[in-house]
Amino acid sequence: MDEIHEECGVFGIWSPPGTEVAEDIYAGLVALQHRGQESAGAAVTDTGGARGNIAALKGMGLVSEVFGPKEMESLKGNMGVGHVRYSTTGESSLTNAQPIVMNYIKGTLVFVHNGNIVNADEIRQNQMYRGQAHYTTTDSEVFAYEIISRRIEASSIEEAVLDAAKSMKGGYACIIMSPGKLVGIRDPYGIKPLVIGKKGSAYILASESAAVEAVGGMLIRDVRPGEIVTLTEGQIQSIESMCEGRRAHCAFEYIYFARPDSVLDGVEVHDARVKAGRALARSAPAEADLVAGVPDSGLVAAEGFAKESGIPFALAFYKNSYVGRSFIRPTDEERIRAVHSKLSVLKSAVCGKRIVLIDDSLVRGTTMRQIVEMLREAGALKVHVRISSPPFRYPCYYGTDVPSSRQLIAADHTAEDICREIGADSLFYLNQEDLLSMTGNLPLCTACFDSRYPA
Amino acid sequence: MDEIHEECGVFGIWSPPGTEVAEDIYAGLVALQHRGQESAGAAVTDTGGARGNIAALKGMGLVSEVFGPKEMESLKGNMGVGHVRYSTTGESSLTNAQPIVMNYIKGTLVFVHNGNIVNADEIRQNQMYRGQAHYTTTDSEVFAYEIISRRIEASSIEEAVLDAAKSMKGGYACIIMSPGKLVGIRDPYGIKPLVIGKKGSAYILASESAAVEAVGGMLIRDVRPGEIVTLTEGQIQSIESMCEGRRAHCAFEYIYFARPDSVLDGVEVHDARVKAGRALARSAPAEADLVAGVPDSGLVAAEGFAKESGIPFALAFYKNSYVGRSFIRPTDEERIRAVHSKLSVLKSAVCGKRIVLIDDSLVRGTTMRQIVEMLREAGALKVHVRISSPPFRYPCYYGTDVPSSRQLIAADHTAEDICREIGADSLFYLNQEDLLSMTGNLPLCTACFDSRYPA
Amino acid sequence: MDEIHEECGVFGIWSPPGTEVAEDIYAGLVALQHRGQESAGAAVTDTGGARGNIAALKGMGLVSEVFGPKEMESLKGNMGVGHVRYSTTGESSLTNAQPIVMNYIKGTLVFVHNGNIVNADEIRQNQMYRGQAHYTTTDSEVFAYEIISRRIEASSIEEAVLDAAKSMKGGYACIIMSPGKLVGIRDPYGIKPLVIGKKGSAYILASESAAVEAVGGMLIRDVRPGEIVTLTEGQIQSIESMCEGRRAHCAFEYIYFARPDSVLDGVEVHDARVKAGRALARSAPAEADLVAGVPDSGLVAAEGFAKESGIPFALAFYKNSYVGRSFIRPTDEERIRAVHSKLSVLKSAVCGKRIVLIDDSLVRGTTMRQIVEMLREAGALKVHVRISSPPFRYPCYYGTDVPSSRQLIAADHTAEDICREIGADSLFYLNQEDLLSMTGNLPLCTACFDSRYPA
Amino acid sequence: MDEIHEECGVFGIWSPPGTEVAEDIYAGLVALQHRGQESAGAAVTDTGGARGNIAALKGMGLVSEVFGPKEMESLKGNMGVGHVRYSTTGESSLTNAQPIVMNYIKGTLVFVHNGNIVNADEIRQNQMYRGQAHYTTTDSEVFAYEIISRRIEASSIEEAVLDAAKSMKGGYACIIMSPGKLVGIRDPYGIKPLVIGKKGSAYILASESAAVEAVGGMLIRDVRPGEIVTLTEGQIQSIESMCEGRRAHCAFEYIYFARPDSVLDGVEVHDARVKAGRALARSAPAEADLVAGVPDSGLVAAEGFAKESGIPFALAFYKNSYVGRSFIRPTDEERIRAVHSKLSVLKSAVCGKRIVLIDDSLVRGTTMRQIVEMLREAGALKVHVRISSPPFRYPCYYGTDVPSSRQLIAADHTAEDICREIGADSLFYLNQEDLLSMTGNLPLCTACFDSRYPA
Repeated sequence: MDEIHEECGVFGIWSPPGTEVAEDIYAGLVALQHRGQESAGAAVTDTGGARGNIAALKGMGLVSEVFGPKEMESLKGNMGVGHVRYSTTGESSLTNAQPIVMNYIKGTLVFVHNGNIVNADEIRQNQMYRGQAHYTTTDSEVFAYEIISRRIEASSIEEAVLDAAKSMKGGYACIIMSPGKLVGIRDPYGIKPLVIGKKGSAYILASESAAVEAVGGMLIRDVRPGEIVTLTEGQIQSIESMCEGRRAHCAFEYIYFARPDSVLDGVEVHDARVKAGRALARSAPAEADLVAGVPDSGLVAAEGFAKESGIPFALAFYKNSYVGRSFIRPTDEERIRAVHSKLSVLKSAVCGKRIVLIDDSLVRGTTMRQIVEMLREAGALKVHVRISSPPFRYPCYYGTDVPSSRQLIAADHTAEDICREIGADSLFYLNQEDLLSMTGNLPLCTACFDSRYPA
Repeated sequence: MDEIHEECGVFGIWSPPGTEVAEDIYAGLVALQHRGQESAGAAVTDTGGARGNIAALKGMGLVSEVFGPKEMESLKGNMGVGHVRYSTTGESSLTNAQPIVMNYIKGTLVFVHNGNIVNADEIRQNQMYRGQAHYTTTDSEVFAYEIISRRIEASSIEEAVLDAAKSMKGGYACIIMSPGKLVGIRDPYGIKPLVIGKKGSAYILASESAAVEAVGGMLIRDVRPGEIVTLTEGQIQSIESMCEGRRAHCAFEYIYFARPDSVLDGVEVHDARVKAGRALARSAPAEADLVAGVPDSGLVAAEGFAKESGIPFALAFYKNSYVGRSFIRPTDEERIRAVHSKLSVLKSAVCGKRIVLIDDSLVRGTTMRQIVEMLREAGALKVHVRISSPPFRYPCYYGTDVPSSRQLIAADHTAEDICREIGADSLFYLNQEDLLSMTGNLPLCTACFDSRYPA
Repeated sequence: MDEIHEECGVFGIWSPPGTEVAEDIYAGLVALQHRGQESAGAAVTDTGGARGNIAALKGMGLVSEVFGPKEMESLKGNMGVGHVRYSTTGESSLTNAQPIVMNYIKGTLVFVHNGNIVNADEIRQNQMYRGQAHYTTTDSEVFAYEIISRRIEASSIEEAVLDAAKSMKGGYACIIMSPGKLVGIRDPYGIKPLVIGKKGSAYILASESAAVEAVGGMLIRDVRPGEIVTLTEGQIQSIESMCEGRRAHCAFEYIYFARPDSVLDGVEVHDARVKAGRALARSAPAEADLVAGVPDSGLVAAEGFAKESGIPFALAFYKNSYVGRSFIRPTDEERIRAVHSKLSVLKSAVCGKRIVLIDDSLVRGTTMRQIVEMLREAGALKVHVRISSPPFRYPCYYGTDVPSSRQLIAADHTAEDICREIGADSLFYLNQEDLLSMTGNLPLCTACFDSRYPA
Repeated sequence: MDEIHEECGVFGIWSPPGTEVAEDIYAGLVALQHRGQESAGAAVTDTGGARGNIAALKGMGLVSEVFGPKEMESLKGNMGVGHVRYSTTGESSLTNAQPIVMNYIKGTLVFVHNGNIVNADEIRQNQMYRGQAHYTTTDSEVFAYEIISRRIEASSIEEAVLDAAKSMKGGYACIIMSPGKLVGIRDPYGIKPLVIGKKGSAYILASESAAVEAVGGMLIRDVRPGEIVTLTEGQIQSIESMCEGRRAHCAFEYIYFARPDSVLDGVEVHDARVKAGRALARSAPAEADLVAGVPDSGLVAAEGFAKESGIPFALAFYKNSYVGRSFIRPTDEERIRAVHSKLSVLKSAVCGKRIVLIDDSLVRGTTMRQIVEMLREAGALKVHVRISSPPFRYPCYYGTDVPSSRQLIAADHTAEDICREIGADSLFYLNQEDLLSMTGNLPLCTACFDSRYPA
């Protein structure tokens, strides 16, 4: 499903003086591109050079569109950060892209951020009362500003980050570049992921381990929830004073957001998805000839369902990776065509077959209705839909972009209603217990399913 | 594998006067984008309007990059053609993009072409002796020119196309737009595909049936090898005088080029690939724990191998659909990184497992060597490589872009040598008999395997 | 006045093997930019290198927009041509831009052209009967094609150019680049200008001498009307067999088109314009306090009027060289604003003054009416308009872009009527005898004034 | 001369609710484009709409490049500001372009600025101590921030502007857009110009009166030095508490920066320049045949010299308004070519003549040396150079971009030395008394001539 969106990906790297990091930032951001396609940016500095001399750029579009040879040439230095962003609203302007680069009393602060600060409006108001002004409408600027405010009194940037973080509520993974060092911080619940990697004598911070591997590095460990880590001069320093609370890792990272080859908080995402599929096969079996997944988000869970049930795993769709668009006013016919232009059925695979169809989630249900219809038109005898997450009922306040809760079909419909709505022969969701066991009982944030918000 | 390339895709549509076809051409080209990503173009005319008044445009890049709202607005009319192109050499300039639009004594001729004319140089020379001049270095212009030359004597555009085609050697599928009608032609061997579709009262010509379905149409039939079809005023006319020879459909359309959801010459591509996988399982079985395909080209055959062998079909890789690049001089390390940035291994899926790995073809072997190595690093115990086509030994002269035959590893290495080279535990190719049976004994061109060129 | 437009400028240079000419072509085209601002192009070859290996590019826009560092880098070689174009109609597409590059039986022919071939349609028809096809709707392609046709029989490119030229009617100045040499040709009447220059051991052909000087070269002489010159290997060869007819140099080159610092057919343009102003002062004197010119086209003639009359020459306007536009539907108010945004009156210069106002020509008269009104609003007591050319009454068929003759106010209005229309206190035009004497009785084409067309 | 640059132009307009101002801002900025060509921007709001809802955009390049139809469409509202900027250093990035848009405790503040704050670094430091952070390196942001800081205590935006201004040293003309009103302020010395205009029921603030007229408005008066004016709801309010000090209007606005058709502080710029030329004719007469000005900056003064001396005023140069560039490493030869490509001599005008050559200023002297040489090569017998300003000896700290004082040839050379250096027959500058009388003894800032800085 493409109706839920992660908002951002972050990447940072410290490498010994004399080396260049722009290529690694580029490769790291390409590896994180699935987390945000609307804008991309980077800032690089030379720790051996003049204090605060920072090359930065950002632009609308994909990493490959924003960074050309000329842009790469301008990003000289051995330490830097990068960011990809998906924006939720009309506010998708260049002004709101990251990194944020601010000059303040102690030098230059560069800030990249994934997540959402729930009490940003309140803190922004306080900052404004102190005479601060904002160029953007983002919570990222609020966070960055708070660090700057605290830095005046604080004895170090890490202390300022800690002070600032104590007043932030929400889910976040941030990288702060200060002259000479990179500081990473993850919210105390660990809602948003952030990992530490190593490549030769360089250290890396990234939203996902896959980005570490994409640049040829190795995953060291996750940043602990609430931990502040400092990468500098070939060492990692840690402040753990905010680490003792309850944890609540975002369940949707495992269900949908993260790359299957990433390992987050000790759990390989692919493995979790296979387990979700297996659990579905146990809790909601079906008599069928094949198990298919909606590409690409339902494929891994489909494989798990197939393994557990013994029903063969089959490819049932062709997904066109090239993007088209409609130039006329969208009508119902047009919206249907939009699904068709991305997805088509492999008729010989499904004709005369009873099918278990897996997807990661159901949001509005409209796309699924069309997919079910396409399968039936291609000759499928039965279509049993299985969703590898519990019903999505409540909004997310921690940085996931979801439709308004009025548009969440599960908010006010039973599974039976939805099954009828999408035209399936049966519909079952993953149980919440199975959700937890798919990550080996890692403490997850399940607020969007049960409204038990961490804060 | 991404080392072999189809060169082009063509699309044409005739719709009743008063309707507009630009949206359908756009959607059709997006559906054919996998056949060529370097340039795109279209030409549209109004058959009810002034003779020869044609709106045309072409540009470098993807369909979505070349056609924006302003461009679409300019393409007014009820009949038109489109083209996507992958270019093989340095000649990838806008000049060589299609459609070709030429004004001649009988009006304007618009020409789009997929394939290669083997004797183009010789014909071009003759044309030049007659005083004709060429703006491009393409064989497409040679073909278009020949039609124009013959049109002076010929009583109709179809007759001119027929006369011209008789002197062309090679594989081709062309659409010619002449005032009032669309003419399609396919080479007598049927090397290149071309299908006829219908959408309401509109008629469509396209390289693949999937493009017909993408615009909401239905496949009627294939253009017969050697057939000339005319679409106009709600009817299809046919000239079959070149239809009686030997047929030789390009095997690689089934192995790799065409979309799996396309049906070409009566064979669903997905079904052929499943059969190839099944045949491999019979002819070259392996003791293994899972069957995996190199995404996306090996996936369907892997599913077939799994079905036949009973070994589970599993997803073993994550493929990043976002494109990155390297900005420094490519070294070996860089080339390895390039594979890594596109493809990564799902470790929990393969660790401790014996794997059958399927891909559609082996060209240089360098990418496969890296993939095998990645699997071993992730803990795979055995890697048995199976290729769903026979060894690729000879160059193609019919419009497929392949490395020079010096770079075809199978040209001068045995399977044993290659197996050692790529580091696999075993390596087997599809037998040529199985190749033929995968398409139900459709007559295929297998020249790249056995040098039996059709001409 | 900006209502009449020259259509093109051409530039060609041969320099010894081992040197590079792209910079000189660029500088030459910038110097000719006033002759055409819609598209620009160039083609360069290496005469020491492989036959016919030509780098060419063209684009919409100014020279500085079409040629950036990357484009310049691609134009390698010691011989080349360039072109700037102003297009008259909707046909202002890239397809119609020049140079034209055509591959034919004797190699590659590159063609650039200023002028208009009156019988192009007829010749194009003949070419089409011979089986030739056209990519553009330009007469330039017709001319280039005719050369190619003749080249098959002709013993040299010069002979082919001569043969082709004999069938062309109209005004033209062309440069043809053939492997190893540049060939220049000027129509037998000498309607369009073309000069030969020298810079070190390089030879130059250009529409105006100012372009020769802009690249640091020196004017040698004009190409004679009807002459064909060949530049190669450090020498100039000449064919003069078409040189003996009547001559008729375009009068508007001296009145308006050419740069005042150019010397064309022995006459410095600035000097001719001063003389026109002087003649006006004698034939149409006025009691006034100052003489002003409409910038920039009327300034030099105004200086001449001032010298002859003894009335001081004064600057009365500020001309904004930055271009604006209107984004709303043009109304009368908007059109007036358009003039205001380009031109404003220096009030202290004109307030309370009687003014002689000079412009080079009157086409529609609408702009002049606004200028007169602006002067009166600024306090001018009298505005005596003097036009430094005779009334423009007839269309031009030789490559000048003018409004349709319905829009030529002088076509059906007397000077008195026009004077009333533009709100002036008096209006006089240059006499035709004075027109001829301003260039020292050089034979001029005056067809637009008296309909005596050369052909 | 093009070696001195004004840094910016500002424009603001309040129009009754329900009207649109984007077209007027566009036209006003085009009229001010000569004051800055590097970036352009605008911000527009609807005073009848929601508080603080502001559409803003800025970009690198000319007004016509930054604002297209889509951009104009986005700028909806009845009040707005615009800015054009010339940047002096490497800091010419989009980040530093204006308008600055900041959200603060009282809403949104939009700020545009022409000038330079001498003590910006010191104030920035104080702001940073208070916890403020800066996105740019501009003094404009420092000023805007200071207003925001003061606004918390101040009872109105005007009071905050006044408080902030009291701590600013330097020359400035700013427009501040606050919800519901436009506030203009001019530094107490009146160094930078700012005028008030009216168009129907709309009010305008602009750097020059010519911009008011370009949009069809009328000049009302200048903002007084030190005055704060508020435009809102059809009225102008004024705070004059900073208006009582010494005045020192920038002399170079009259000598070179401003458009000749502008009236600044009661003096028409064209008239001042004519007077400067007249004064030179009296103080430094020459025996000559004609008076010429270096286009465009020396033309008006040349006309004045001619009038006073009785020597005819003549056009001696052609200036190419199209821009070229060099693509190879600049050598001496290249730099000479650069002058040639912009300027060429009208030979018949100068050959055999004794010439008085006027320019507005001499900075390095290198361009003038080439112009003198060009005149001599064209046959000029004598070249008497007259400069319509005193010797430029000292740097400007108020927002004019000048070369470092090491590059000011007059800083350490006598007029005799410079005369020899530029190869002239004589060289005289305007006396400082004449400078003052050219503007009717308006109090001018003459610090660049005599180091008497206002502050």
